[in-house]
Amino acid sequence: MRNIKLTIEYDGKRYLGWQRLGDSDNTIQGKIENILTQMTGEKIEMIGSGRTDAGAHARGQVANFKTNTTMDAAKMIAFLNRYLPQDIVVKKVEEVPERFHARYNASSKQYSYYVWNDVIPSAFERYYSFHYPQELDLAKMNEACRKLVGKHDFLGFSSLKKTKKSTVRTINELSIQKEGSLLHFTFVGNGFLYNMVRIIMGTVLEIGAGEMKLEAIEEIFEHKIRQNAGETVPSQGLFLDEVYYE
Amino acid sequence: MRNIKLTIEYDGKRYLGWQRLGDSDNTIQGKIENILTQMTGEKIEMIGSGRTDAGAHARGQVANFKTNTTMDAAKMIAFLNRYLPQDIVVKKVEEVPERFHARYNASSKQYSYYVWNDVIPSAFERYYSFHYPQELDLAKMNEACRKLVGKHDFLGFSSLKKTKKSTVRTINELSIQKEGSLLHFTFVGNGFLYNMVRIIMGTVLEIGAGEMKLEAIEEIFEHKIRQNAGETVPSQGLFLDEVYYE
Repeated sequence: MRNIKLTIEYDGKRYLGWQRLGDSDNTIQGKIENILTQMTGEKIEMIGSGRTDAGAHARGQVANFKTNTTMDAAKMIAFLNRYLPQDIVVKKVEEVPERFHARYNASSKQYSYYVWNDVIPSAFERYYSFHYPQELDLAKMNEACRKLVGKHDFLGFSSLKKTKKSTVRTINELSIQKEGSLLHFTFVGNGFLYNMVRIIMGTVLEIGAGEMKLEAIEEIFEHKIRQNAGETVPSQGLFLDEVYYE
Repeated sequence: MRNIKLTIEYDGKRYLGWQRLGDSDNTIQGKIENILTQMTGEKIEMIGSGRTDAGAHARGQVANFKTNTTMDAAKMIAFLNRYLPQDIVVKKVEEVPERFHARYNASSKQYSYYVWNDVIPSAFERYYSFHYPQELDLAKMNEACRKLVGKHDFLGFSSLKKTKKSTVRTINELSIQKEGSLLHFTFVGNGFLYNMVRIIMGTVLEIGAGEMKLEAIEEIFEHKIRQNAGETVPSQGLFLDEVYYE
């Protein structure tokens, strides 16, 4: 069978997230699988690199699926973008070796999170950032980011219950760029636990606003108690930028 | 009476444009005037710097209105942003001299127009740019821009019928920045005729795509025949960035 890799961009505002929930539901996976099934005449199931939350966005989600269709990649991408809703776009279609698996083979991922840090809201960023009007200490937040980079047990920064599976992950980069009132946080890591980016964001913001001490980070790494971390910030500021494969 | 100047940002996607059409309509002016009337208890009519088209956006539209309210500017901006729809944001409220007039006193304006120049569409830019997939010759478009800058009779680049009023305007800047697949056109001028930015854009794109010759520009300046210029591109790519006052 042929193995096809898709690179997908979506505006997640209207959707219940990546993962298909039922037969005809409002999820990104569901919308794409329905078109793939029409396109190939086969019942297609995709493997995504991972889930994204309801309301979260992607610039470079990756998925793969197996098919016997003889259609070439150029025809597939044209068909998909013609029939998909306009807020889901397939950016690339590639034929890959049969062993390629979008989830198991992902070596790292990049996420962005955007914060609109201004008393006055933004008409354009309202669905693509978290409006956080409090004053923030950027230097303190940068220090918090430095403490989070590296190999740590992130269980306390996740919504997971205690689990036998390893919750150790490595964050390779966590940086902040200020573009006017918009703060752009970039996360690169070898894997992210459930809600990890959003809980880290909530923690870094509380530190920036002076509501939490910098030392809280080591304490959460040590005791792994989610309640000691910051709030889970809204999904609308979250973008899956890119999935890396070796 | 006090004279109040508003600086306004809006995502025009859902609206019929700036100018109020009736008593309870879906226009930006209508939405803001309704809230101002509630806020002051007076029947408020605003003067805008100029109209914007249905579907077009603004980052810095300017309007003024007269009122006897004693409410201070900080309270006004909080009230307005609390009750306006989230896609209309008042960025600034300032008390100005009574003679200030948002339209008559405007000395120049800056507009942006965005073109998504890629075969593959964009999930995020679809309401904020014009999808133009043809290959474009950037050097030729830059040359076209240089020919358009300066003081000219722009009647042929407008949707106006012949008129006794002057249709001579000065474009001070017309530049193109390429940011990946997104082309950002910046227009600065002392005034713009009806549909002038959108017709100039259509003309520059046809020149870039090789469907029109560069010399067409001088010809349109000379004969002032709108049919010889390019198409009126869609309003969704158009942003009123800033209105300048001396």
